[in-house]
Parts: sequence; C-alpha cells; structure tokens
Amino acid sequence: MLTGIEVLLIGGDTRQLEVIRELSDKDASVKLIGYDKLYGAIGGVTLAELVPESFIGADAVVLPPVGTDEEGKVESLFSARELVLGDAHIERLPKHAKVYTGMAGSYLRDLCSRHQIELVELFERDDVAIFNSIPTAEGALMLAIQNTDITIHGSHTLVLGMGRTGMTLARVLAALGAKVRVGVHRSDQYARAFEMGLSPFYTTELTEAAGEADLVFNTVPARIITARVIAELPHRAVIIDLASKPGGTDFRFAEKRGIKAILAPGLPGIVAPKTAGRIIAGVLNRLLSEDARKRGMKHELE
Amino acid sequence: MLTGIEVLLIGGDTRQLEVIRELSDKDASVKLIGYDKLYGAIGGVTLAELVPESFIGADAVVLPPVGTDEEGKVESLFSARELVLGDAHIERLPKHAKVYTGMAGSYLRDLCSRHQIELVELFERDDVAIFNSIPTAEGALMLAIQNTDITIHGSHTLVLGMGRTGMTLARVLAALGAKVRVGVHRSDQYARAFEMGLSPFYTTELTEAAGEADLVFNTVPARIITARVIAELPHRAVIIDLASKPGGTDFRFAEKRGIKAILAPGLPGIVAPKTAGRIIAGVLNRLLSEDARKRGMKHELE
Repeated sequence: MLTGIEVLLIGGDTRQLEVIRELSDKDASVKLIGYDKLYGAIGGVTLAELVPESFIGADAVVLPPVGTDEEGKVESLFSARELVLGDAHIERLPKHAKVYTGMAGSYLRDLCSRHQIELVELFERDDVAIFNSIPTAEGALMLAIQNTDITIHGSHTLVLGMGRTGMTLARVLAALGAKVRVGVHRSDQYARAFEMGLSPFYTTELTEAAGEADLVFNTVPARIITARVIAELPHRAVIIDLASKPGGTDFRFAEKRGIKAILAPGLPGIVAPKTAGRIIAGVLNRLLSEDARKRGMKHELE
Repeated sequence: MLTGIEVLLIGGDTRQLEVIRELSDKDASVKLIGYDKLYGAIGGVTLAELVPESFIGADAVVLPPVGTDEEGKVESLFSARELVLGDAHIERLPKHAKVYTGMAGSYLRDLCSRHQIELVELFERDDVAIFNSIPTAEGALMLAIQNTDITIHGSHTLVLGMGRTGMTLARVLAALGAKVRVGVHRSDQYARAFEMGLSPFYTTELTEAAGEADLVFNTVPARIITARVIAELPHRAVIIDLASKPGGTDFRFAEKRGIKAILAPGLPGIVAPKTAGRIIAGVLNRLLSEDARKRGMKHELE
C-alpha cells in the first residue's frame, strides 16, 4: 500500500489513467495537474494547479512518458492549458522527492540536477523495457502484416539486435512461422539466439545477410541499416525500424531505392495504451513502496 | 510440368498474377480474358476475348476466387470491360474440361451442371482451407491489435471452432501469450485443444465462457454469438468474426450493446494477396497435372 504518500501527477495521455487508478487503489494521495477536462471522472483524487505551492510536501512527481520538451512544456491530453515546468516548481519539492518519467531530455535532466532532485527514467529500466517489448512486438507484427503482400509465416525475416526488444520480437516472429535470422553483436547473444532455434549472425555480416530478406526489423539505436545494406536488399523488402528517433536506417537512401522503410518508435502507447499504462503503473507502485520503506527505515535509525 | 495443357484464365485480382506466373512457368498454354490493362506486363501468355470460340479446346477454365455473381458477371481488376459468363461459352468446352474457382454461387453451379462440366471449388478443399488459415490468422491478429487498447499477450481470448482456421488461430494466439480458450462441438476437437495446451469448452457452454473475454474470434459459419452470449460479454470485449458472410454474430445486438464486432471474411486476399495467390497457384498446378496424367492413362487404355 502507498498510504500517506503524496504523488503529484502532471499531464499525460490515456496511459496515465491506469497509473492514476493504480496509485489511487493503493491509497496514495494523488494530486493531478493538467486534468481539468477530466474533472469528476476519477474518484479519490484531487485536482491542483501548476503553481509552486502544489509541489510542497510531494514525495513523487510523475510526468508523462516523454517528460518535458526542451522548453519545459508538459503535454496533457486532458487540458487545453499550457503546462511549463520550471525551477520555481522543482525547488519547492522536499529533498527526498523523486521525479518519474519515461525518457528525459536535457531540459528536464538539468532542471532536476540543479535542485538535487533524483530523476528516474522508467523506460531505461530493464524490467520496463522488457514488459514494453510485448506491445512493441505486437505493433511491429501489425505493421508487417499491413505493409506486405505476403504472410509473416514463411517469410525471410531479419531481426537486428538481441536485446530486450529484439529477443521478444524474434521469438514471436518464429512462433508465427517466419524464417528468422537474428543479427547480434555479442557472442552471448549469438549463443542465446542459437539456443532459441533462431539463426544468428554477427551484424558485421549484415550486408551478406540482407540478400534474401523479405522483412527487416531493427531494434539497434545506431545507424546500422546503411546505404550499403539497403543496396543489397531485394526490392520487395520492407524495413520496420523500432529504435528511438532518428532510428537506425538510412531512410533517405531507402526512399531513393524505392524500398519501404517505416520508423515506428513508441508503439506501446499507440497499439496498447491500456497495457502500456499498466506497465508504468505496476513499476511505479513498486518503486514508490520501496522509496517509502527506505525513508521509514532511515527515520527509525535517526 | 503442364506442357500441352490449355488454361483459360478469366478475370481476377492480384492473386491471379501468381497463378498466371506459376502456370506459365510450368509451360501450360495460358490464355487470359479480362487482362487488357495488363498487356505486355506478362510474358509467355496470350490475351483472348470473352467469345465462345476462346473456349474450344481449353482443358481448364480458371475463374477468380469469388467465381461469378448471380448474373454471371466475372470481376476483373485488369479490365474496364464487363465480363459475363454464359451458356454460349461453357457449351464449347471439351467434355473433360473443368472449371476452377474459389467459391461458387448457384448461377455458376447451375451453368456448369447444365453442360456436365465439373466445377472445382478450391476453397472447399481441406488443403487450401488450411493453407489459407495462415493469412487469415495473421489478418485476425492485425485486426485484434488495431481494435483493442491492450496487448494480445495476457488477454482472455475465446476462439470459436477448432476446424481448419480455428486450430491455426488458437495456436498463434497462444504463441503470442494470450490466455486462449477454444469452443468446440466435437469430443475429438476437445481432446486436440487439450493436447495443445489450450483450454477447451463445448460451445453449448459459450454463455458461461463469455463472462471474462477480452477478445472473441469466431470461425463457425452459423449464428453462434447470439444476443444471449453478447449480453454476457464484458463491455470491453471485441468480436472478430471470420466466418463467411453473414458471419456467426448477432451484429445488430452487438451494436445495440455498444460492443465492437467486426465481420472480416476473405482476409487472405486482403492482407497477403501474394501468398494467397501462391496458395491457389500451387494447388491448381497439382490438380491440373493430375487431371492430365489421368487423361493420358485413359487415352493409353483406349
């Protein structure tokens, strides 16, 4: 339970509704900023304004998955008002407070570090990334089915990267009957892909592997699908790039060669916002409980 | 090889391009009717008109997957002209000729039977239906991912029917991590679903099984998802009905209750036309070879 814990939740999209529900169910004291359109729809929470006073006494600030933009703006689906987070707000937080978001840019990082407030980027965590790989893989399947005139079953498919997302994706593609080859850059990943019955290769050999690919899924956040690789792909190939912007594909050259290439980051929030919200909610609940437990222990020792 | 076999191919969509390619590769003599827009794009075939003379000497007539409409009209994506198939055409066929289509209506059935020409409905065949279950299952996955805000992984899913399509669909849903229950009406299907680790139930118990379903896939071509069943479904449930028109769902009542229900027959031609074409092409190639072999044997015996 989160009884007695004060959470200030600012902005967000439908995913945050699952977070609000979970924190409220666990008896946290939840204040919402940027939810004026939703007033009355959620019980057990209070609405607040984006003013410095709202930050006094908060144990945690929960921002949307994308945090703030580089001017401090926080998006909210549930408010028409502009929400800009700044020093005046963060400086009023207690020193033990933490700011939670999915991914942070330099504005938010600098803001928190100026006031020595710990910033937690949830999407960097292995558990969150692995949970999120499930909706990501399903979104990738959807894109592949929509953008090809063949079945995934029987297709020659490359998955680049055997990390948290790559392993999930390779497994479900193989389960659907695709002929999956996995491009890895570490020998342990090579061994794991082999154990799973997938055909591994080192990404240094990607140009050679490209020759008969119907589908290429990229999870590597670096320019890996270069012009040289694209030049080797058959014309029918479709590239689905799941890495964060700007992706790992030379999109300019793909377009020039007439090869369909789709940049699709952030699929969980698009194809399964409810599940994506539950993933964030579950991890937040656990982290807030741990924080409270640690504060309690410290308090007892003093 | 199909050397010496005359095939008259009338109308169709992109699927037929795979059929033409396959038959032509196997050295059949292919004449196309209703392909005037495509002239020059396909080598090794000839174009013909829809006149009785074109039917003289043909060993096989290949119609589009949907055959003709109830006035004898044959659709062609590759011609603006109207193509109407009638007695004057079919009566010119040699007695050993066969007419191949996906599914036939009564117009086409009556037409062929009047002239004692064998009509082969490919989609009725078990092999074709099982091959087609692959793109059907992928199309069903796509619809499920598009129309829910949760992942298939972890969802409570019902698959109604454990036939040629139901078995494929249940297997891939389970592989993606769904909690699959399969509604069957035969004890052997019950046993098979059990063996596959799926949780079977008899469709007589469907009303009881409906209570916690997130997703319901129907493959049974009979009114099975009745108003009584729909009344038991949670509001969040989505019905994807894969049975031939009019499907097995009380769509009127589903709409009244605000439950999303999608009728989606004919998915292979939509989500994977190339694979769907290859399925038809592969089976046709085999059937035409067998026909020719039998005619040759009969000829030798005479």
